[in-house]
Order: sequence, then structure tokens, then C-alpha cells
Amino acid sequence: MEVPRELYSGHPVNKRQHQSGECTEQGELALLRRISKATTADRGIEGRGVRLGIGDDAALFQGRRGCETILTCDWFLEGTHFLLEKHPAESVGWKCLARAVSDVAAMGGMPRCFLLSLAFPKILSGRWLDGFLRGLWRASRRFGCPLAGGDTTRRREILINVTVVGEVRSGRALLRSEARAGDVIFVSGLLGEAQAGLDLLRMRDGARRFLKNPLLKKHLFPEPRLALGQWLTRERLATAMIDISDGLSSDLPRLCTASGLGARIDSSKLLKASPLLPERFPGIHPLKLALDGGDDYELLFTVPVSKARRVPGSFEGIPLTAVGWMALEKDLVLIGTDSSESPLAAGGWDPFRSKE
Amino acid sequence: MEVPRELYSGHPVNKRQHQSGECTEQGELALLRRISKATTADRGIEGRGVRLGIGDDAALFQGRRGCETILTCDWFLEGTHFLLEKHPAESVGWKCLARAVSDVAAMGGMPRCFLLSLAFPKILSGRWLDGFLRGLWRASRRFGCPLAGGDTTRRREILINVTVVGEVRSGRALLRSEARAGDVIFVSGLLGEAQAGLDLLRMRDGARRFLKNPLLKKHLFPEPRLALGQWLTRERLATAMIDISDGLSSDLPRLCTASGLGARIDSSKLLKASPLLPERFPGIHPLKLALDGGDDYELLFTVPVSKARRVPGSFEGIPLTAVGWMALEKDLVLIGTDSSESPLAAGGWDPFRSKE
Repeated sequence: MEVPRELYSGHPVNKRQHQSGECTEQGELALLRRISKATTADRGIEGRGVRLGIGDDAALFQGRRGCETILTCDWFLEGTHFLLEKHPAESVGWKCLARAVSDVAAMGGMPRCFLLSLAFPKILSGRWLDGFLRGLWRASRRFGCPLAGGDTTRRREILINVTVVGEVRSGRALLRSEARAGDVIFVSGLLGEAQAGLDLLRMRDGARRFLKNPLLKKHLFPEPRLALGQWLTRERLATAMIDISDGLSSDLPRLCTASGLGARIDSSKLLKASPLLPERFPGIHPLKLALDGGDDYELLFTVPVSKARRVPGSFEGIPLTAVGWMALEKDLVLIGTDSSESPLAAGGWDPFRSKE
Repeated sequence: MEVPRELYSGHPVNKRQHQSGECTEQGELALLRRISKATTADRGIEGRGVRLGIGDDAALFQGRRGCETILTCDWFLEGTHFLLEKHPAESVGWKCLARAVSDVAAMGGMPRCFLLSLAFPKILSGRWLDGFLRGLWRASRRFGCPLAGGDTTRRREILINVTVVGEVRSGRALLRSEARAGDVIFVSGLLGEAQAGLDLLRMRDGARRFLKNPLLKKHLFPEPRLALGQWLTRERLATAMIDISDGLSSDLPRLCTASGLGARIDSSKLLKASPLLPERFPGIHPLKLALDGGDDYELLFTVPVSKARRVPGSFEGIPLTAVGWMALEKDLVLIGTDSSESPLAAGGWDPFRSKE
């Protein structure tokens, strides 16, 4: 078994690494400054409510009056959520933040700051870390969500955990649990695009051949639907909302369970929210991708029938599609294009459902 | 390379795990309920500002007026921070929260809630997870810090990341950066006890022989100094504070760097804050333990000379010892019992200082 170094820290047989006794910038502190420099270069973090950023025991954040604080955290682990050989470092940096920010979007909130917990092997301290921080910085600017603090350590594999702090006006957060029977189910964007992008990435030389393919871009650099989520909250249109991170067939049941309801999904309508696949794409049916594909970070929201007409066909260029309705019967049914009914089974990602 | 399952989620060649189409409690949801039940069994989480707990996209927290929010996160990784074979599951659960809560104590704040990110292998889903949740629940009650949310996944090794949200009256947080030259340096408790406890644990059968040894208890179930930190903030006695998690010789330089100062540590005084070792303990000098031992989670704080007399000899049974003073010269000096001066070198834990 590998002897954990931390557990031996301070033991007198350990060699002292520094004998100078001077307070020089070194080790973890130097890394923190590098992270801090790379992610807060051109913005005043105070502007987002962060009173005290990196470098102390903890960060200080000042919430706004009339708002509740949104708290969410997400794993992003090498080998589980991304592949070191396939995913560019910049995508890893972008996506670890985008995933957690998407949870804030799913509440109708606005991100305010984030904490980064990062563990990685020394060999990746150079180019890889630079690329990672560049992607993180781009995402941080894009989402208006500066780095406020975190924790770093060495590890054989890359381990990332991101905590995002957001805000929403008190009482206005959109929960999973407030859908009502009869509500129309809407989804944003085209579902399954990110999964198709991953399939391209996994092809030999896929990344190079399809570098500018929008499907690959959706997989590598997803855009949480912040503006849409905030608009739905402001307009009081939606009753419930969730982000589609593990696939419609996995995330819709979560909203159903929380609301104590079932759902009916209309295949012919869902097809309109399915991805446009490039020629010579491996034989996957777009409907399958739309049902089971993960990593889209689109929003699924429910709207009372009386308000459904007020939902536009697109929002800031993102299509909004009615794909079904909430039902009192607590099962999930897929209605085929021939009007046949079949159970809608969870085919997306749930690490604890597998028998492995 | 291991094929990451998540990356294959939703691929149509995957076998469907559920064909029923019903909204039953399963997989991650079932685990979340188990965690939730184990950690919020007998307390109203709303009482701590948590408006919405486990089960939605994110948690909702309502800060109190006149307070700033403290944000901190900490890794707790198998093989790096604990050993599966040596550390009881209950200690892992307690300690992962205690470590992060200690950062709140070091700001003079009060913990309000926490997020748990947990990854572990399926084989540990039974007894180990029960023990872990029991330790976590005990710590949660002890620190008044309920679980508000988190993220869970499967992994070969146990990975834990804890985010703690705390509060402190606006403008009253004790930072690392506000120490002034001449300030007296105080430490709480006896430093190096946890390190001595780890040494006992690492002995063959150490855990069994020394099960009730207070040193072992300090290593396995550390107590963040919440009441002391809050008292120091309230009384406006301290100018700067940090918790000693990596050893005095590693944490004091951090406070010095942040304050732009150096420090002088008096060996004869530090000896009074060194651990009382049991008979037949391996030949480690208590002073070495007090300087370099990690995991104590005691507080180090600086007090202006004019106020130093108001610091009592102990606080709620925890000794408070003046061990040195802050100096304009930016080096760290250890003054021997014979009045000789030598550089105080960092001998504690810093994962990025090692040459590995």
C-alpha cells in the first residue's frame, strides 16, 4: 500500500524541505497565487459579493437583501467524468464549473462565486494546469462567477470538486417538487447533442476531425441556461424545473418523484428537440439520444396549460419545445409516433443503479 | 484503461437497468435518502438557515442580517488524509466535517450547514457507510451544522470533499493578515497531540491498546475550537487568527506572510503547550511534536501586548499559552531554552512542497 505522505507529516524522521526559516512564497501558497492570478486577473471579485477571496482560512461572502443563497457542489473526476487523453485541459476547466453553475440555472438563480477543490499529479503542473486554468477562467468570466477559495492537494489522478454559490430572490427559486398534474413539459435546446459529441470524441481522431463540430463543442464546453432560468423565474411561468445533466429519461423521473406525479412524453414532439446528426454518424437514433444522452445541461421545466402559450418557440436563439405533460398516474410513459404507449425507462447515468 | 461508465451513459448499446418505467426510489436517490435520514434525523434543518435541503438541484440558505457568510471546503481522501485499514469509519465521518468546521472557527465564525461530496466503492455500502454516517451525524450535531446537500458517485477509493457554510458578524471575521509587530502569539490546547495519536495508531495493534488514550482520541475525533474563536471575536481581543491543521511550523508562516511580518517562538514557552506522552512512547521530543505535528485543529491567534493580560490561562478547560511574538523582521526564529536562536523551518504538511 502506498504510504500516504500527509500521514507522515511532522514526523521527525522526515527530511526538512526548508531550512532557511524565511517566509518565502512556496509550495501550496505559490500554487494558490497562480490559480488566483489565472482566475481573477481582470475582475474585481468584490463586485460579486466576495468580501475576502483566496488566501485565508475561508472566504467571506455578502449576500444581497431579499435573496436566498443557492448552494451546490459537483464532482468532476478523471476516468469517471472525463478522460485525460480525450478531453482537452481547457474543456476540463470549463466543464467542472459549467456543471455546477447549471444547478444554479435550474433554480432560476444567478451564480455569485465558486470554490475549487483540486487534486492532481505533479507531472500535470505545467501545460495541463495552464490549460485547465484558462478554461476555468473563461467559464468564470462567461458565467460571472469568480473564484473565492478552495483546497488543493497532490494525487495520482485528477480530482475536482466545485462548489457554486448563487442567489435567487427569496421565495422565487424553482424547485423540482412543485409541478402539477396537467402541466406542460418543456425542454430547452436539442437533447442528446452532448452525447453525440462524446461519440465523435471517442472515435479515432474524432477530436481532430470534428474540432469545430457544434456537437463536440456542446460536449466540451456546455453552456448552462442561466438567462433562460432567470427569465422563467422572473415571469413566474414555470412551476418546477431541473437541469438535464444525466439524460431526460433519468432526470425527468427525479422531477416526477419530487412532485409526486408521473409524466407522458410524446415521441413526435421530442423528435423536434433531438440532435441534427452529421452524415456518416454511427447508427444511433436521434430519439434515443434525446431520451438517454447525458451532459446537455439543458433545462426541463413545467408550465401550467393556461400559461403554456406564453412560452416562446425559442429564447435567445435556444429552441424551447413542449414534449409532454405531467400526469396524476405515477408512471412514465413514452407515446410512440404511432400512438403506442410504452414505459419510459431510465437509461441515463446513475452511478448507484449499476450492478457493478 | 478503465472505461468510465458515466461516459458511456445513454449509449444505446448499454443495457437498460430498469424496464418498469415506474418512479420508484432507486440508485442515487435511495442513497441520498439514507444519508439524509442518518444526518438530519432529529433536528429541524430550517433552524440553521437551511430553507431547502437534500433532494433538489441545489440547497437554499438564508443568511442572517448583519452577518457575512463564511465559505470553506476541504479534501479528505483515502490514502492521503486517512487509511481505510487504520481509521475507523466513524472517525472518517467525524473528521471530514471537523476539518472544514475548524476553518470557520479560525475566522471566529459559527457553522450553519454543510455540503457533502462523497465517492466510494460499492463494497463499502454496508457497515462502512453506516459507521461513516454515524460519525458524520455525531459531528453534525456537536458542531450545530446540518447537512444541506451534496453530490455522490461510485469510485474505487473513498473520496470526500466537505464545504462548510458559516456566519460571522459583518466586519468581525478574524483574518490571517491583520497581525501587528509586537503582538503576542497564543496557541490553544497542546500542540502535537494528534500527531502522537497517529503514531499510536500506526503501531501494531495501536488502535486497540490505546483506544481510550486521549492522544488517539484527539487524532480520530478532533474538536474545532468554535467557542474560543467566537469568544475572541466577540471580545475583540485578537488581531489575527489561523487554525493549526498542518503543524505550527507550517501554519505560523502562513499568518506571517499574510501579515507581512515575521515571528519569534520561545521554546521554553512552547514546551508548556506540548503533549504529555505516555510511558514507553517512541523517542520523539515533545517540542518537535508541538512544532511539526499536524491535525490538531487548535487555534493560533495574535493579541496586542496591551490586551494580552486579558487572555485567561485556559478557556472552557482548554489551555491558552503565549508562545512568542510577531516581529518586523520577516524571518521565523526559534529561541532555544538556552536563549540560542535558530531558523524555524517548516516541517509540517504541504503537499506541494515535497519533491515527489
